Amino acid sequence: MGRLPIRIDYSLAMHPGTSAPGGLDERELDACASRFTEALDATLHDVRRGALGFWGLGGDPTIADAIDAVVAKLPAVDDVMVLGIGGSSLGGRSILEALRGPTGLGLPITPGPRVHFPDNSDPFVLRALFEHLRPERTLVVAISKSGGTVETAAALLLARAFLRDALGEKGMRERLVIITDPESGPLRDLAWRESLASLPVPKNVGGRFSVLTAVGLLPAALAGVDVRALLRGADAMRAACETRDLRKNPAGLFAALHVLHHERHGRGIHVLMPYADALRPFATWFVQLWAESLGKRVDLGGNVVERGPTPIPAVGATDQHAQVQLFMEGPRDKLITFIAVDEPAGDLAIPHEQGVFDDLGGLTMAGLLDAERRGTALALARDGRPSLTLHVPRIDAFSLGSLFFFFEAATAFAGRLYGVDAFGQPGVELGKRLASALLGRAGFESEREMVRETESNRNESHVLE
Amino acid sequence: MGRLPIRIDYSLAMHPGTSAPGGLDERELDACASRFTEALDATLHDVRRGALGFWGLGGDPTIADAIDAVVAKLPAVDDVMVLGIGGSSLGGRSILEALRGPTGLGLPITPGPRVHFPDNSDPFVLRALFEHLRPERTLVVAISKSGGTVETAAALLLARAFLRDALGEKGMRERLVIITDPESGPLRDLAWRESLASLPVPKNVGGRFSVLTAVGLLPAALAGVDVRALLRGADAMRAACETRDLRKNPAGLFAALHVLHHERHGRGIHVLMPYADALRPFATWFVQLWAESLGKRVDLGGNVVERGPTPIPAVGATDQHAQVQLFMEGPRDKLITFIAVDEPAGDLAIPHEQGVFDDLGGLTMAGLLDAERRGTALALARDGRPSLTLHVPRIDAFSLGSLFFFFEAATAFAGRLYGVDAFGQPGVELGKRLASALLGRAGFESEREMVRETESNRNESHVLE
Repeated sequence: MGRLPIRIDYSLAMHPGTSAPGGLDERELDACASRFTEALDATLHDVRRGALGFWGLGGDPTIADAIDAVVAKLPAVDDVMVLGIGGSSLGGRSILEALRGPTGLGLPITPGPRVHFPDNSDPFVLRALFEHLRPERTLVVAISKSGGTVETAAALLLARAFLRDALGEKGMRERLVIITDPESGPLRDLAWRESLASLPVPKNVGGRFSVLTAVGLLPAALAGVDVRALLRGADAMRAACETRDLRKNPAGLFAALHVLHHERHGRGIHVLMPYADALRPFATWFVQLWAESLGKRVDLGGNVVERGPTPIPAVGATDQHAQVQLFMEGPRDKLITFIAVDEPAGDLAIPHEQGVFDDLGGLTMAGLLDAERRGTALALARDGRPSLTLHVPRIDAFSLGSLFFFFEAATAFAGRLYGVDAFGQPGVELGKRLASALLGRAGFESEREMVRETESNRNESHVLE
Repeated sequence: MGRLPIRIDYSLAMHPGTSAPGGLDERELDACASRFTEALDATLHDVRRGALGFWGLGGDPTIADAIDAVVAKLPAVDDVMVLGIGGSSLGGRSILEALRGPTGLGLPITPGPRVHFPDNSDPFVLRALFEHLRPERTLVVAISKSGGTVETAAALLLARAFLRDALGEKGMRERLVIITDPESGPLRDLAWRESLASLPVPKNVGGRFSVLTAVGLLPAALAGVDVRALLRGADAMRAACETRDLRKNPAGLFAALHVLHHERHGRGIHVLMPYADALRPFATWFVQLWAESLGKRVDLGGNVVERGPTPIPAVGATDQHAQVQLFMEGPRDKLITFIAVDEPAGDLAIPHEQGVFDDLGGLTMAGLLDAERRGTALALARDGRPSLTLHVPRIDAFSLGSLFFFFEAATAFAGRLYGVDAFGQPGVELGKRLASALLGRAGFESEREMVRETESNRNESHVLE
């Protein structure tokens, strides 16, 4: 096996890199080796029986081909609205921000269409889009694995009216793409009934693991990203993550370090802090993946455990001026993962100016950023506060693909090590059902009773106004 | 006293609103009443002796006048670059996003200049701005209370070269505004030396409490926001937050609920989850305020306590598909604050379409959003997981100003209740000094030795590549 797509420096998560008692010692990590091989075997068993579709996406050439075929038939547009929420939005957004330049500036940074992600039932973003986009130059991509996500369905009804009012039924249908279950669900039915362009979310790929399906790749492809390079990066990382030696398995190491620091040292808050603006949405993607996969009421044996680490997004150096005070001085309940970019693109040399911040002239912005990252990691380590650093050579499609797979595999392993099912999200159902009851939707009578009961328990004097 | 600018419903943070044992009982809260009056008295004592300048900003008419005077003399521009980091950026960004429409779309949503916040030493955003902005139509606002923040200084050197290369020394100076300490520091010296337009950050207002000084208000004013309404909102909230009755003091109640849920029930993770896209940056502003103020190594008596809650930003309904699974089923270590907007502007009616998500037609997006918020809060409460809800009538300058003051006062009170100094950030110094050593800056010889020592403790075998 050659070099890994990323380099993992965990010396500051271990003793003596971190002043004791902040680091793990060698024996703690070694003692986890057999637990890890069990986790790996169980995971690869699930892969072989077809349950974990995300594992093989990078090696499946049909995915990019299918996307190409759909893209080739779509009209040229200036704007793309991606209607999706959670796992149907965060991955695509991460790719776009990392590879197509900063999207929040209101500037035409890159050629190709603008891709918008109105990922909420708040009308705030949708309203602005409907006011400013030209329907004849707009494509709408609706993404929902189940096909019934209420926020996405509502946005789609609005988007259909937006297109239909200007372009008629045919023009609307030409500008709609559906990404959903290949065989069933309301969106799949709609795609069939109206012969809409569509792509599948494979049945065995969960929403938050779907970035390297059409869910993340179609928006990327529409913006001109090299989706095959994303997939190659994932596949290169997959090979490394099948290694049985814990010390050689990047995702295994990440999972074990986090679970051990949590179980043995009470570090249940897991911070992801890329020193890269381009990876801000990536940190948010990670938060969903880690929180929703590992935050579970029952373990694999069905026992109530109410377990799960709390992930936190941060970005360096910005959060040195926001969250690092807490990380440095607050409770010792955090493990921080930095991401460093070793060969930054488009660095800026800080100009010399006589008498104005003289000692900064001649440095570069990326050099400054890197020194701040190292200074922060070392300052934490000196106080026994552990961290690890993922080094990516550069932010490109290959590296990003390998990062996606890395964190997905780490999540699967961490689920096994925590002893929970990383692949469902049963906890969000009740809130959705109560919301449906509150909206008066049919079929939620018992939930309406639950709302009444819970509301009636409230003490009205507990309102200050 | 009339109605509060916001309504606080804490019924689901108390028993029996929340199934036991998730809620506080009346006695727990009442037992905090005298602790609270001590915290209030200590805070108001600090206010009277002039130490807490943020308290009186809303009632000081000279602030808006000074901003008007500066704005009147500035050239008309298309773009504003606000160079600042942490407290010098998050407040302004919160105001702009909330009151001027979504800024991340690449669309000309509102009239007036675009305001950019390149708040990092990563060249990613700055590079794009320098490539696309026209110097003659660009204003640069550099903000640093101390005047020596390295990220801001470096960005300013770059921005000065950007302006000077195109417009010469005079043209550059006309397009620079400095916001810093009124009397000292490198930026103040520069402003004097070059007769630059400038505004003060009052000495007794800390960076993360400075949103209602020129730090947040000048960017707001440049974008056409009614800054006097922001200040009026803050002042209305200030009056309420001086009430000695804990049950009537909104910020006191917020602080006490959070500290009690933390101390007595182990809920040290504090989530702020507005159901409003417009308040996404506001949640990030809160994270800095809460984390940096309350995460402290020593208490007010100098004892090592390593205390502090961990704030988490979220947004509804989006995070129902990302973090709510963890909030519902994970450890019972979280207290969630929802923000609801009671009279949403610009709602969208979901159109009826025969056979396509029939039961959504006739609802509205904001109605859907509100039902999701209520459903989520009630589902949490049924499982004994507490929350409170701040209701704002609408997102306007007045409400936003009152929200800023509310959280600032709550932070001051929480500092007293936790027994820590909410107004310093000593923990970030070491990392900055080590970074300076790594950059080879003069005067950091002992830090260079610390870097060497810490690096040499690292075990090189703890690198996987």
